[in-house]
Amino acid sequence: MHFATIALIGRYQDSQLADHLRSLASLLQAAGRRVLVESETARNSGLTDLPVASYDEIGQTADLAIVVGGDGTMLGAARHLAPWAVPLAGINHGRLGFITDIALQDAHAALADLLQGRFDTEERLLLAGEVIRDGVSLYSDTALNDVVVNRAGRGSMIELRIDIDGTYMYTLRADGLIIATPTGSTAYALSASGPILYPGMQAMVIVPISPQTLSNRPIVLPDNGTLSLTVIGTGRAEHGVSVHFDMQTWSNVQPGDQIIVRRAPKTIRFIHPSGYSFFSTLRKKLDWNRLPATGHNAE
Amino acid sequence: MHFATIALIGRYQDSQLADHLRSLASLLQAAGRRVLVESETARNSGLTDLPVASYDEIGQTADLAIVVGGDGTMLGAARHLAPWAVPLAGINHGRLGFITDIALQDAHAALADLLQGRFDTEERLLLAGEVIRDGVSLYSDTALNDVVVNRAGRGSMIELRIDIDGTYMYTLRADGLIIATPTGSTAYALSASGPILYPGMQAMVIVPISPQTLSNRPIVLPDNGTLSLTVIGTGRAEHGVSVHFDMQTWSNVQPGDQIIVRRAPKTIRFIHPSGYSFFSTLRKKLDWNRLPATGHNAE
Amino acid sequence: MHFATIALIGRYQDSQLADHLRSLASLLQAAGRRVLVESETARNSGLTDLPVASYDEIGQTADLAIVVGGDGTMLGAARHLAPWAVPLAGINHGRLGFITDIALQDAHAALADLLQGRFDTEERLLLAGEVIRDGVSLYSDTALNDVVVNRAGRGSMIELRIDIDGTYMYTLRADGLIIATPTGSTAYALSASGPILYPGMQAMVIVPISPQTLSNRPIVLPDNGTLSLTVIGTGRAEHGVSVHFDMQTWSNVQPGDQIIVRRAPKTIRFIHPSGYSFFSTLRKKLDWNRLPATGHNAE
Amino acid sequence: MHFATIALIGRYQDSQLADHLRSLASLLQAAGRRVLVESETARNSGLTDLPVASYDEIGQTADLAIVVGGDGTMLGAARHLAPWAVPLAGINHGRLGFITDIALQDAHAALADLLQGRFDTEERLLLAGEVIRDGVSLYSDTALNDVVVNRAGRGSMIELRIDIDGTYMYTLRADGLIIATPTGSTAYALSASGPILYPGMQAMVIVPISPQTLSNRPIVLPDNGTLSLTVIGTGRAEHGVSVHFDMQTWSNVQPGDQIIVRRAPKTIRFIHPSGYSFFSTLRKKLDWNRLPATGHNAE
Repeated sequence: MHFATIALIGRYQDSQLADHLRSLASLLQAAGRRVLVESETARNSGLTDLPVASYDEIGQTADLAIVVGGDGTMLGAARHLAPWAVPLAGINHGRLGFITDIALQDAHAALADLLQGRFDTEERLLLAGEVIRDGVSLYSDTALNDVVVNRAGRGSMIELRIDIDGTYMYTLRADGLIIATPTGSTAYALSASGPILYPGMQAMVIVPISPQTLSNRPIVLPDNGTLSLTVIGTGRAEHGVSVHFDMQTWSNVQPGDQIIVRRAPKTIRFIHPSGYSFFSTLRKKLDWNRLPATGHNAE
Repeated sequence: MHFATIALIGRYQDSQLADHLRSLASLLQAAGRRVLVESETARNSGLTDLPVASYDEIGQTADLAIVVGGDGTMLGAARHLAPWAVPLAGINHGRLGFITDIALQDAHAALADLLQGRFDTEERLLLAGEVIRDGVSLYSDTALNDVVVNRAGRGSMIELRIDIDGTYMYTLRADGLIIATPTGSTAYALSASGPILYPGMQAMVIVPISPQTLSNRPIVLPDNGTLSLTVIGTGRAEHGVSVHFDMQTWSNVQPGDQIIVRRAPKTIRFIHPSGYSFFSTLRKKLDWNRLPATGHNAE
Repeated sequence: MHFATIALIGRYQDSQLADHLRSLASLLQAAGRRVLVESETARNSGLTDLPVASYDEIGQTADLAIVVGGDGTMLGAARHLAPWAVPLAGINHGRLGFITDIALQDAHAALADLLQGRFDTEERLLLAGEVIRDGVSLYSDTALNDVVVNRAGRGSMIELRIDIDGTYMYTLRADGLIIATPTGSTAYALSASGPILYPGMQAMVIVPISPQTLSNRPIVLPDNGTLSLTVIGTGRAEHGVSVHFDMQTWSNVQPGDQIIVRRAPKTIRFIHPSGYSFFSTLRKKLDWNRLPATGHNAE
Repeated sequence: MHFATIALIGRYQDSQLADHLRSLASLLQAAGRRVLVESETARNSGLTDLPVASYDEIGQTADLAIVVGGDGTMLGAARHLAPWAVPLAGINHGRLGFITDIALQDAHAALADLLQGRFDTEERLLLAGEVIRDGVSLYSDTALNDVVVNRAGRGSMIELRIDIDGTYMYTLRADGLIIATPTGSTAYALSASGPILYPGMQAMVIVPISPQTLSNRPIVLPDNGTLSLTVIGTGRAEHGVSVHFDMQTWSNVQPGDQIIVRRAPKTIRFIHPSGYSFFSTLRKKLDWNRLPATGHNAE
């Protein structure tokens, strides 16, 4: 993998973004690489003296996309680039992210490593989903983190029948349901008591949100299964069910609709400087390096 | 797969076991199959008029083992037969088990199905582990459910350094640690807030028991990784660490010892009557068919 | 306590309600009691031959209110009658409720007990809350189960600063926050991993819903404290925060608003036939009488 | 409250303890107070030039006990001084404790405050328990944190029948059961998913450890109830049940034995410099001041 053409993508609303991107662009150009700035990023940062490209153009011509921002910025960029095989590297601007694992202050050294071929490649699966009503597909989208089905408001849980590969799993009454990839297992699903899935796993996990049946638990499934969620039309859940693909929301789900979720045909590739450790990020983000908080009567 | 020779294995201490086994044996013999009774089972049940065989002989000659009892009986039989490729079918005697999924009252019909080839085969992975001190392997064993490291008593958590494939994961202070297979994910690990793993998954899950660091969470790992648990010798945890392989306990673990756990080279095959559904068992065992317990303010 | 005048209140949309109420009314009248039917109940059930009374009239004249329905019906009636000291007895029509603990088939015997003075009285606290903006109270209400602050949608957690009695507790980022009474501790709060509070306790519990900080835990507080929740105006949480008092929703909360929650000056009294046990209900509702589901390797 | 006589108590095995204690003693003596060193502390630290006193003598003559160490040291001292009304102040030597809330570097200023009457007093309840066999009390003890009933080993849960005030609560099959005071709610119970109880609450909480029934939840009870735990003699749990009072273990519990736990008649008083906030400690210990770890898709 040679990174001849490299795209730069930045977080929206970041006053110092132009400086950071310009500095990275200089480094890349000095190394003889062609640099493109994603058009929205260029507009937001006022970085107009570099070649600008749409996501489609980046997808067609870039060998690498460098994202400067947080995990949310990376998520957006990854979703846009999912149809192409452009790998992404994430530089966190602010605090360490799960997928933006290069600190801004280490960015120059890290990029030098990448340019010289000292990097690891990691493949992350995406979910593809669609909403079907009366046999017609009304909406479809992909997600790198998770597909979430829920309902606005309170006193108004959602009731879902869950099948996998045509086999009935169970009927859930809850605030909602998260279907997360390994990437998404450290995001919203973790807050809802889901397990952490090792990034490379070919698996997804379904995590109920505040389920009424107290023995409902997260279930880890192989990524070759097809999930079907049927919205059941009882009680006050009849209006306003939403389905969310990462940060994209479609709010027109109705009782009787089926939400089909399966592994997307394409994957996302992340590039890490050599020596990257998922567990190092995990320890830092979840604060596993500190001394334990509770006493267990000890000391 | 033709089941020419079939072994019968029964639960220890079951007053009606002889009757049940005799009835099954008649059915099998009437269908022209050779029947063997596992020697311990024969002794316990007084079933001496049928050919008796040790686990080794069963492993070498039987095409199928039928286990009558609970999940614990099945677990024991599976561990004994792990070195051979003998598949197992489980008849629950009492309440439904996760792996003894044929009800006793349905046993005759189910066996008729099996004999006529109407069955599904399911492969379950086993864990292999060993305890290493100063480079020497002191103990090794296999587990179908889980490997558990813990310490007797209270006010005395265990401290473990966990690595995978030579990469440092994290250091745990807790009552103990469970490493469970998908099969074991519905046993002890579930009580310790672990997720459910779909039976066929090529994965294992590590579940901390009452961890001091409140953000410690279960982690699902691919089954091709090698886990290393190093017992750290601080505080009062210096004496009496135990490692358990399913129901087998080895209590001589000392600080500095390494417990290595990986997927065993052999798997266990379970035989189910056609139409078996893991989720059907799950719904019954975890009571997911009932109306939800809590109100969510609704009704 | 002598129940001279008794009000009947029934669930909305219940085709057999008229029959049940008429049967109860006959029993009560035969015992020389004056019977009133709550006006909405009368309209819904078509029960027009009995004296009808508004909630206010019931509050002023009744000595006991008998509620036929589920916990939701009871909740609504209790909220209406909170300003007066009318005690309530709940007859569950369908499945056992936490607060409608008399089964319909046992209703006649139970009422006979009540009329003859064989009953226990139990006092349940209510929460009173108000939303304050720029020093002005915009909305106020009471809750028997819980006050819930949340936000519609996803990718859009809420950020709340929580103080008690003027002392800063912590800042929460989560899907929402539940403040539950002991009565509400077995409702929505239980689904969100809150503890069960013994009914008579003079306490409330705050339970975060899917908190981002994994070490956030439910906190039980004495009922004489005053909670203040300040909605913080960052990120996308700027629009559409809602506060719910049991099933009543007020959706106009804005960043900077303060939600004040404290114990209400009035309590609700529940009447149970003698021998009532909260734990008996708990065991039945949460299915604690069954044999355990998971194996722990045992059997 | 005037602290005329002040006892110093220190952690076992702390090489710098003598220096710290001598420095505190000088400060106190300069302020005209009489200083006593607890005899075990004096022996361990070699601090022999100050008056030495046993716990009994301290209980009878001291107006204040200052504990230097961790929460474990404080726990031990509190248990020893429980029979007397001597209040305790805790100086943490190392990291912040839940009950040793004065940092060593702030100790001089904090003590100056205490001596001049600028302090808050806080009362913490203790649990008293005893083991009864055939009507005879075999063992009794008190606990400031918790009473824990469990069993060594694995594949060997404990089965307990739990009653309160003579009313049957439920039967538990689990690794064990914790009965915690508000003080203990932030210790072992927190690791076992118990809620946090505000320190002053007149309540206790029972927390099951890895319960087999997945709907078993922590239950908060008023502190005027009497809990009875009966060890049930089934399965392999017949040998070796232990009961722990804080760090004291009694391992001779047998099936049929009853463990009675109730609030102790005496309480412990803690002294804090004015302005002490339990929630400040909580935020620091549980790391609630950090930015949230998980992404919720946001940023």
